[in-house]
Amino acid sequence: MHSTLNDAALDQLFRTARTYNAFTGEVSDDTLRQLYDLMKFGPTEANTTPARIVFVKSQEARAKLGPALSEGNYKKTMAAPVVAIVGYDLRFFDKLPVLFPHTDAKPWFEHRAPDNLAWVAMRSSALQTAYLILAARALGLDCGPMTGFDNAKVDAAFFAGTSIRSNILVNIGHGDPASIFPRSPRLPFDEACRIL
Amino acid sequence: MHSTLNDAALDQLFRTARTYNAFTGEVSDDTLRQLYDLMKFGPTEANTTPARIVFVKSQEARAKLGPALSEGNYKKTMAAPVVAIVGYDLRFFDKLPVLFPHTDAKPWFEHRAPDNLAWVAMRSSALQTAYLILAARALGLDCGPMTGFDNAKVDAAFFAGTSIRSNILVNIGHGDPASIFPRSPRLPFDEACRIL
Repeated sequence: MHSTLNDAALDQLFRTARTYNAFTGEVSDDTLRQLYDLMKFGPTEANTTPARIVFVKSQEARAKLGPALSEGNYKKTMAAPVVAIVGYDLRFFDKLPVLFPHTDAKPWFEHRAPDNLAWVAMRSSALQTAYLILAARALGLDCGPMTGFDNAKVDAAFFAGTSIRSNILVNIGHGDPASIFPRSPRLPFDEACRIL
Repeated sequence: MHSTLNDAALDQLFRTARTYNAFTGEVSDDTLRQLYDLMKFGPTEANTTPARIVFVKSQEARAKLGPALSEGNYKKTMAAPVVAIVGYDLRFFDKLPVLFPHTDAKPWFEHRAPDNLAWVAMRSSALQTAYLILAARALGLDCGPMTGFDNAKVDAAFFAGTSIRSNILVNIGHGDPASIFPRSPRLPFDEACRIL
């Protein structure tokens, strides 16, 4: 049986962690591999793990991403050490013979309607985006996740001719404390939860 | 700047954490409040925090949930100390004057088509489900998340007459190591990620 993580860890992951608008430092390719090697273990529906990630670091890749960003997200994203484009593969079921080896799970999904497949793939890739954010924090990094971008433009720039669609962008680096606003409120327990 | 959490914490959160099929012990109402007080801080789109959670503990509530479960999920879910029904509020924007106080964000969402609102609400509630899973692990608990249930039946039993829809169920307790299978594979970095 595990015990509760110490207060410093709970702060780092949740309580004092914040969404940053500016970052300092670099994020090495090795760190991105460490990040994936943590987040990949988070649970998804039937172990489908549909997230497909492009880590944007080079000036060339940034130049492709820029025109897809909303005005409010442009400057901070262009300046972030890394931007993770988290997408989802609509043909995630092609990998189930590897990912779900104990039974033939591909038929559970492959003939479903496109809308349902998009729902299923997006949902698990959102879970995986949250795993990525918390794994980054566990590695001492900070994040700035965003949905304010033109998905069709990102898809055309990075996923043309594939079955991958963009979901969420996450700026990653060491957060600059000067770049955050006071924390917005959260709902009290009794407005968000019931115990029955 | 934060450092990396220690190996024991990374194991507990990601590397040796598993989806359990059976649990021991109880989960107190106080623990559920601690759980919410961590997960609530995770980032969501425009701080919408659309997740609405029913923690099922009583025999009465279990009896309402049972008929909605798939055969493979029935027994383990009926026996779990707590089942979190994580739903999303399609009218999440009604709370934005509280949740996003620095500007009037309600008009960003309120006139959107129902399909788009469902997509937006489901996506952020999936992020919040992942925060719940990792917050539970951070508190020394284990989880068994599931999508194998009849959403319409859960909605009728728990959310009738509301704008809340069910998304994911999460069994919560102290995992019984005898109840897990060998871990299924994950995609290698180069199959799931690119660095550009």
